[in-house]
Amino acid sequence: KFKIFGIPVLNSPVNLYRIVESVGAEVTELTEGDTVIPVFLPDCGECSDCLSKKSNLCSKLPFKVSPWMPRDGTSRFTDLDGNTIHHFLSVSSFSEYTVVDIAHLTKIDLDGDVQMNRACLLSCGISTGVGAAWRTADVEEGTTVVIFGLGSIGLAVAEGARIRGAARIIGIDMKPEKFDVGKKFGITEFVNPADCGDKPLSQVINEMTEGGADYCFECVGLPSLMEEAYACCRKGWGKTIVLGVARPMSEMKLECFEVLHSGKILTGSLFGGLKPKSDIPMLLKRYMDRDLELDKFVTHELDFKEINTAFDLLIEGKSLRCVMWMDR
Amino acid sequence: KFKIFGIPVLNSPVNLYRIVESVGAEVTELTEGDTVIPVFLPDCGECSDCLSKKSNLCSKLPFKVSPWMPRDGTSRFTDLDGNTIHHFLSVSSFSEYTVVDIAHLTKIDLDGDVQMNRACLLSCGISTGVGAAWRTADVEEGTTVVIFGLGSIGLAVAEGARIRGAARIIGIDMKPEKFDVGKKFGITEFVNPADCGDKPLSQVINEMTEGGADYCFECVGLPSLMEEAYACCRKGWGKTIVLGVARPMSEMKLECFEVLHSGKILTGSLFGGLKPKSDIPMLLKRYMDRDLELDKFVTHELDFKEINTAFDLLIEGKSLRCVMWMDR
Repeated sequence: KFKIFGIPVLNSPVNLYRIVESVGAEVTELTEGDTVIPVFLPDCGECSDCLSKKSNLCSKLPFKVSPWMPRDGTSRFTDLDGNTIHHFLSVSSFSEYTVVDIAHLTKIDLDGDVQMNRACLLSCGISTGVGAAWRTADVEEGTTVVIFGLGSIGLAVAEGARIRGAARIIGIDMKPEKFDVGKKFGITEFVNPADCGDKPLSQVINEMTEGGADYCFECVGLPSLMEEAYACCRKGWGKTIVLGVARPMSEMKLECFEVLHSGKILTGSLFGGLKPKSDIPMLLKRYMDRDLELDKFVTHELDFKEINTAFDLLIEGKSLRCVMWMDR
Repeated sequence: KFKIFGIPVLNSPVNLYRIVESVGAEVTELTEGDTVIPVFLPDCGECSDCLSKKSNLCSKLPFKVSPWMPRDGTSRFTDLDGNTIHHFLSVSSFSEYTVVDIAHLTKIDLDGDVQMNRACLLSCGISTGVGAAWRTADVEEGTTVVIFGLGSIGLAVAEGARIRGAARIIGIDMKPEKFDVGKKFGITEFVNPADCGDKPLSQVINEMTEGGADYCFECVGLPSLMEEAYACCRKGWGKTIVLGVARPMSEMKLECFEVLHSGKILTGSLFGGLKPKSDIPMLLKRYMDRDLELDKFVTHELDFKEINTAFDLLIEGKSLRCVMWMDR
């Protein structure tokens, strides 16, 4: 539908934005030269989900794990031998030029000195974490939040919970140095599962919180950790929110009687339950109002040719978010 | 704390009420001659749960499966040989006299010609089903509801959903005659799993509802049926509510990626999420206002000496609710 040039985004250490280079015949929402943020989650604006306040899961262009193709099912990319290259995560951002369906693009208004090397962070993980705290969980003031896994998504959950005025934000990670990092994002207490001895992690949290946390966020993608999170969210009103991507077909188990009598809530969300086209501008405004803090997520800024270094930093756990510049 | 005489209640075909015979020294809430409804779920009115609008799971006297004893841990009953008899479900209602903790008793105001052989129905299953529709699920007008299992609890869910204005109420049961029964409670469509051929039940429901129901209620207690219910509640906002009592230690499995990306909500509740002391009077008012219909749940009324007949009727699936009279 639509070609853009600029700076891509991925579920990775790399966040970028794009400038529209040309638009397809039926596209009226954007025009050449517009600044956009490409997002893996579609927002068609027409289906029952996009029109509902309750869902961000477009029915017209449903999210699929593979193969990623535009809505007509054909690719716009080939390699030098003419083999099809898929549109990875619907945006294929690791290229100077890409073709993206209009449903995956959110226009950014450049009024008010928006810095695009910060706005681009809203294209994936940060929105996911903040959205999960605000929209999926609806964290209330004075509550206790536990975050399993302090990568960028977990820290973004903390940022969202901090802004909502959570009283305690307990961070859990295998790396002790994450506690110092986490403090900047509102983490008030830290638990390293390696220090729990014979006690299950959920028991440690249940003891710390005298009966469980109001909200537990699983940001790793391990079935066993999802079960632990459920086991230490509070009876009566505790919510467990799954954000971690588990291996395909992996299952979590819940004791049926616990589900019945605990009153706990289990849910999950993509992109933090946010709708890209309406909620990214909302988050951007919160950033411009100096409410939502984005700067602290950026640990590196690199040129596009250094993309492999950016991946190394991610794999080594040395980066949170790395902004990549296409044009410098 | 407290002795009562009258007409008991149980998670069974039998519903009864009680007249207070005497009260313990510290009891000020009730007095001799009051009419009360005994409920298995405590409502101490003082703990963080009882004081919260979000929970009905008393922390001071937490619900336990066994042994049922008053708060001091000792029984008030012995058999003829002096052996301890437990306080079954905290109310031990199948006796002419019983001793019940004040936390398990809700006073009924006899103004307005309340018929106690109807009010007593609010002591367990009917409240559970109606409460699950109103409080746990918060069923909205115009929505689609699926009910797995059309016993009294499932039919009470239907009654609650009917009053809320659900557009479609799909009942599922192995007994075809349940459809005619269900119509009185608002069931609009009926599915017998035996008629589904090779298709999983969830696929049949997903096809009928074009993508899943807004609310699925499991009222049987089978892990596999809980999984089917989850599989056919709608992405984005569908809620699965577990009300069925499964075998101890039985587990349900959820695919982790489904939990993450579907946005579905899984929860459960005891007593429909209702607080006995405040919500039973609310339900009773709705009955007196001819809004909530209770009469249609009563298929039998028997004398206490016929209690074994009442159980036979339940086991044979011939009764919905049977009111037992102590004194006639």
